[in-house]
Amino acid sequence: MSLFKRIKNERMAQKGRASPFHPPQRTLMGPGPSDVSPRVLEALGRPTIGHLDPEFIHLMDDIKALLQFAFQTRNELTLPISAPGSAGMEACVVNLVSPGDTAIVARNGVFGGRLIEMVQRCGGTAIAVDDDWGQPVDPNKIADALKAHPEASVVAFVHAETSTGARSDAATLCALAQEHDCLTIVDTVTSLGGIEVEVDGWGADAVYSGTQKCLSCVPGLSPVTFSERAVDRIRSRTTPVISWFLDLNLIMGYWGSGAQRAYHHTAPVNAMYALHEALQMLKEEGLAAAWSRHARHHAALAAGLESLGLQFLVDHEWRLPQLNSVLFPAGIDEAAVRRRLLAEFDLEIGAGLGPFAGKLWRIGLMGSSCNQRNVLRCVSALESVMAGSGNGSAIAAANATYVD
Amino acid sequence: MSLFKRIKNERMAQKGRASPFHPPQRTLMGPGPSDVSPRVLEALGRPTIGHLDPEFIHLMDDIKALLQFAFQTRNELTLPISAPGSAGMEACVVNLVSPGDTAIVARNGVFGGRLIEMVQRCGGTAIAVDDDWGQPVDPNKIADALKAHPEASVVAFVHAETSTGARSDAATLCALAQEHDCLTIVDTVTSLGGIEVEVDGWGADAVYSGTQKCLSCVPGLSPVTFSERAVDRIRSRTTPVISWFLDLNLIMGYWGSGAQRAYHHTAPVNAMYALHEALQMLKEEGLAAAWSRHARHHAALAAGLESLGLQFLVDHEWRLPQLNSVLFPAGIDEAAVRRRLLAEFDLEIGAGLGPFAGKLWRIGLMGSSCNQRNVLRCVSALESVMAGSGNGSAIAAANATYVD
Repeated sequence: MSLFKRIKNERMAQKGRASPFHPPQRTLMGPGPSDVSPRVLEALGRPTIGHLDPEFIHLMDDIKALLQFAFQTRNELTLPISAPGSAGMEACVVNLVSPGDTAIVARNGVFGGRLIEMVQRCGGTAIAVDDDWGQPVDPNKIADALKAHPEASVVAFVHAETSTGARSDAATLCALAQEHDCLTIVDTVTSLGGIEVEVDGWGADAVYSGTQKCLSCVPGLSPVTFSERAVDRIRSRTTPVISWFLDLNLIMGYWGSGAQRAYHHTAPVNAMYALHEALQMLKEEGLAAAWSRHARHHAALAAGLESLGLQFLVDHEWRLPQLNSVLFPAGIDEAAVRRRLLAEFDLEIGAGLGPFAGKLWRIGLMGSSCNQRNVLRCVSALESVMAGSGNGSAIAAANATYVD
Repeated sequence: MSLFKRIKNERMAQKGRASPFHPPQRTLMGPGPSDVSPRVLEALGRPTIGHLDPEFIHLMDDIKALLQFAFQTRNELTLPISAPGSAGMEACVVNLVSPGDTAIVARNGVFGGRLIEMVQRCGGTAIAVDDDWGQPVDPNKIADALKAHPEASVVAFVHAETSTGARSDAATLCALAQEHDCLTIVDTVTSLGGIEVEVDGWGADAVYSGTQKCLSCVPGLSPVTFSERAVDRIRSRTTPVISWFLDLNLIMGYWGSGAQRAYHHTAPVNAMYALHEALQMLKEEGLAAAWSRHARHHAALAAGLESLGLQFLVDHEWRLPQLNSVLFPAGIDEAAVRRRLLAEFDLEIGAGLGPFAGKLWRIGLMGSSCNQRNVLRCVSALESVMAGSGNGSAIAAANATYVD
């Protein structure tokens, strides 16, 4: 067929202009993504420039400094990996674990299990240390594993388990690992910006996070930071990192100091605009203020949920304010409730994962989603859907916590 | 320090509101990213919804169908990888190459070399087949390599070498591979949307691309498509894919058919809005019309550049209209020219890579960047910077090609 005829045929075949996608305006109270501020969305849509443009290099420097602030670290190697949190997790594992290495990995939820799988795929031996889902990682078990496996060179754990809503004691776990000369890999995907994360204070070595939780940026980037000890280990590897895309020896050439950056891959330029804006918002608020905000609205949400007969999975001490895992009373068609919340209230909450599928909801209060308006919206919507019209007592319970 | 005092101190430490990043308004005529249409930027900034939202699942289905159109394939496994083109390349390699496998890899530029490195990192043996940079891949050499290495199970090559601007004969190379029962990995990062890409017509097995070249979407996603033969090989692997993040056995659960999608990672939701819009624009224009537009403006740009004394690296037959690699006359301070184009004309063109660093420019005419306005802007800016004020003869040469 001639090109001319082909063009004509294609034009004929088109049934008018295709329809654009207009997303509904949801309130995002699941396990992430969280509500993205209009400020961040506006930054996201600014004109694209090149990934080697001098103006973009300046932006990269600013993002690095803002991530150092968010992570509370002076680590030089602090940057966003150009892919979601799972890729950040994989970046930490494949750079720190060489074939034949032993890693002690705590597993008290989905993401500990994922860490184990990644260790194994890159040729390492994973020593799984299990705790019940919903419990924090038990430091005594990690200490025992360290004694039983003196060959271990890495300890990996999840600071804030997104699958259960449980926090673990990162400072204690990092200190234990250091006593045994192990480097630490720490998952702060759900904690960064929502509760205290102190990378230098903990002495953590390889820490990854996500943008779509308490930073309330769009999903797609994974902030990471590496200590000097971690960088030394990466630089002195005798086998290549199995992933070219995630090899920090190569990425350092692009994210390193100075104006001269070596091309590695094309950075997701617009997502970086959004991350920059989201981190600036965190800085404007201040870390301690952000943590305190998460705690305050969690208290209100918890009062409302408990008034509805929902029970928290995680004990108060280890509960993440930004991720509320609640077990519902018998006889609830949980999927139907979530469908109605979405259809009638444009409200997204999360389902349970793994052994908790069909048994609990995960209600997020992350970043921009964490405010009084959302707390009351969620409690009143749940009250309406679960108890018919509701009598307002749950809202009253939530509201009462705001009265000082 | 008490939390209250800490909040107060943080507030004190802030020097007013941090400044937002306002990117300059560049004309992007390097090797990518290309100019992103306001339509795509507007779609990008729409409200974020969840990656498991039913509305998002519909969008995923639409994107899949649009990618099948762009790739000209009926392949069921067609989707965007949630990371840049290099990750798409790695996805193809790590899923198709198992430890101990032999892959014949053509190398006639940077990206063939990158493919070799990825094959080696995942435990495969790479048989490099070299051609001079700027030349197409020689099918006779590939045929010889296939005869010499009957153990080979994969042939990998780059359809459109972004580092040189050379096209290779994908149909012939795929046919050769099929004769020897090898699967093919084909890089169409720079070709998709700019010149003919016919995945089913070629009989290609694993094909990856990028969003920031001739699709003129923001960087950060990598469209991929896999034939039934490729899917069979991935499903029947006896060793796990080394990358958890890029394991298509897992990703198929999220991108598979039906309403029930298994959570794998959090998709970059807003980038998907943008890709959807960019693909709709391609569909509205039509593939053949888009290819013809690239050819037409390339002819004008080429006339202008040659009038300025710039020489094309690649012979006419194998030249990519969307990526013009031109050698400059002796005595030009090429970095200074690029700096002036950027500073005075907000115009980005690309530098040479590898052996061509400091020896040529790569001038892109990709997607939304490929129009008469940009051709004339580029030629007149180069004329002004290279020849003082210029006498307009290059512009005249370019313009003459537009007269039928």
